[in-house]
Amino acid sequence: MTSSDLYPVSRLAAVQEATAKAGLDALLLTPGPDLRYVSGYDAKPLERLTCLVVPASGEPYMMVPRLELPAAQASPASRLGLEFVAWDETDDPYAIAAARLGGAGKVGLADRMWAMSSLRFREVLPEAEQVLAGSVLRELRMRKSAAEAAALRAAGEAIDSVHRQVPGFLRAGRTEREVGRDIAEAILAAGHETVDFVIVASGPNGASPHHDMSDRVIQAGEPVVVDIGGQLHNGYCSDSTRTYSVGEPPADFAAYYEVLRRAQDAACAAVRPGVSCESIDAAAREVIAEAGYGDYFIHRTGHGIGIETHEEPYIVAGNGEPMEPGFAFSVEPGIYLPGRHGARIEDILVCTDTGGERLNNTPRELVIV
Amino acid sequence: MTSSDLYPVSRLAAVQEATAKAGLDALLLTPGPDLRYVSGYDAKPLERLTCLVVPASGEPYMMVPRLELPAAQASPASRLGLEFVAWDETDDPYAIAAARLGGAGKVGLADRMWAMSSLRFREVLPEAEQVLAGSVLRELRMRKSAAEAAALRAAGEAIDSVHRQVPGFLRAGRTEREVGRDIAEAILAAGHETVDFVIVASGPNGASPHHDMSDRVIQAGEPVVVDIGGQLHNGYCSDSTRTYSVGEPPADFAAYYEVLRRAQDAACAAVRPGVSCESIDAAAREVIAEAGYGDYFIHRTGHGIGIETHEEPYIVAGNGEPMEPGFAFSVEPGIYLPGRHGARIEDILVCTDTGGERLNNTPRELVIV
Repeated sequence: MTSSDLYPVSRLAAVQEATAKAGLDALLLTPGPDLRYVSGYDAKPLERLTCLVVPASGEPYMMVPRLELPAAQASPASRLGLEFVAWDETDDPYAIAAARLGGAGKVGLADRMWAMSSLRFREVLPEAEQVLAGSVLRELRMRKSAAEAAALRAAGEAIDSVHRQVPGFLRAGRTEREVGRDIAEAILAAGHETVDFVIVASGPNGASPHHDMSDRVIQAGEPVVVDIGGQLHNGYCSDSTRTYSVGEPPADFAAYYEVLRRAQDAACAAVRPGVSCESIDAAAREVIAEAGYGDYFIHRTGHGIGIETHEEPYIVAGNGEPMEPGFAFSVEPGIYLPGRHGARIEDILVCTDTGGERLNNTPRELVIV
Repeated sequence: MTSSDLYPVSRLAAVQEATAKAGLDALLLTPGPDLRYVSGYDAKPLERLTCLVVPASGEPYMMVPRLELPAAQASPASRLGLEFVAWDETDDPYAIAAARLGGAGKVGLADRMWAMSSLRFREVLPEAEQVLAGSVLRELRMRKSAAEAAALRAAGEAIDSVHRQVPGFLRAGRTEREVGRDIAEAILAAGHETVDFVIVASGPNGASPHHDMSDRVIQAGEPVVVDIGGQLHNGYCSDSTRTYSVGEPPADFAAYYEVLRRAQDAACAAVRPGVSCESIDAAAREVIAEAGYGDYFIHRTGHGIGIETHEEPYIVAGNGEPMEPGFAFSVEPGIYLPGRHGARIEDILVCTDTGGERLNNTPRELVIV
């Protein structure tokens, strides 16, 4: 898979068309996932302005600090045949961009554009209504191409290979942080460029869904939630959670773990084109609520994933968006008993023409190590 | 040095006072350096809103996704006695914040607030003028306390210890990337939490100031620019550049390297309270221009540094800001001969009552390895 498959040159024209259709005059894409998605350029986020300007009609161009010009020219953005507008240390790049944009009436800002840029664009384009570029790009970014799905599949295999090593890292007497360090090394060794998160939540820490790692010593008989992910060199992300038990777990834990496993299965089974995102959340929630644990499932069921770990679509009550082939997202219900322990099972799925393909495939039964 | 020294509880009151004085009704601080500076909380940047609201008068509070509440409570922000306003998955945290803020007329946004948040704040607070929180915080952030200067000194010692190892990594026949990997490991081993950048620019690559690393094989007789830095666990950053030569360098290189060394010395010697930032830039530029290399020094002389690698004050033409004790910044002139080679020498300095203290102290003479 080359960057031309993942970030095809044809995408820029599709983005221009979508920009025009949405009634925007231009997208202003500073470094971050939106810029990378459109151009393939993984630009560093810096105080000096780099900005791909995608007008609804006319030629796109990229504002680049002269210092970053070689990096931009060496990046996949160079395939697009864009003009690079290099600016010097004492230039005002916002004024230069504004002069070129003329009387833009509505512009779309990269979702992660820093306020230091969005407020400067407001100054130099006082008449332009600012909206999120995501309002245009979400429709494209949510629908993964075959190449993108393949990249997410490879990311899934990479993180699965790490989960297969976790039983070797986990044992009573080690701290969460010690285990986490081994996992972080394994994430890099599995081909990720970055380690994005390593949650090792033992015993009562497992009841806090976003617990990170601590110096807590793991005890025999404790469940441990392990939620890990990273970003491949090509930009695509992995994310998978498994819950392990160090020795035989408490009986009450074993009981609700089985409920959780059924809930996660039910949500995965509910995935198919046309069903709403919230109905997948509801499928998991129903199983958990019926078993009496409804109050202990305290977060949404999932999030989209691609070149960001969290992106649209969100699998949450209130999101009536219908599933389409190519949507990629997590299904990760959890049950959390405050002060005691918790469990979560998470797979990434991609919606196919007929259902949901799971991209994570390590055992979902409780692994006792 | 504890986090209470670096992020004192008293800072919040000072920020409130500065907010009132600047005529702002509140600061809205989402995850990033501004939030960390004020609260000590190194919150993860996520799509779910975390936001410290600092009103000019009245009680500050922090909007936190319920999932992140344990992390926020475990962070240094808990020392501040703040109210944590936890919001649930189906709440609109922007609406909650707006209702509390009432009719705010002017709000300061964290400089790195994402557009996905700044535009939502605009929707829910349509009457509020948005400015940068930096307009208030810069005055505080630029003036490092004794504890902050000590943290930057420790960061300087850490990166100096890495530069002392570089001659052992550099040799003809290795690629820039191989050398860079050794350096990255050494940066972590020296006590940094993250590797922020590793520039290894050999031969002609040295002529591009922001060249990163490549698979280019380093040749005998080539100068190599090594610009490296990371962030300590306490948030403070390191950044130092040295230029090495793998064997005897070309004669023309040796000649301009000596000019560069004098220029860097002249700029460091120019540092004292009351002189303008641009005069320090000019001090370096004059030496280089007089020797006939003015066209080859293509960037500003430096940038401020603290909990960001690049922050105010910038040492650049046009910045008339007078130096004050506690200002911390880089002095890093360079000379770049396109297609041939380049050199840069960079130290971090902190302005004292009488001059400039260099926080990097490895040899500045050309090191031939």
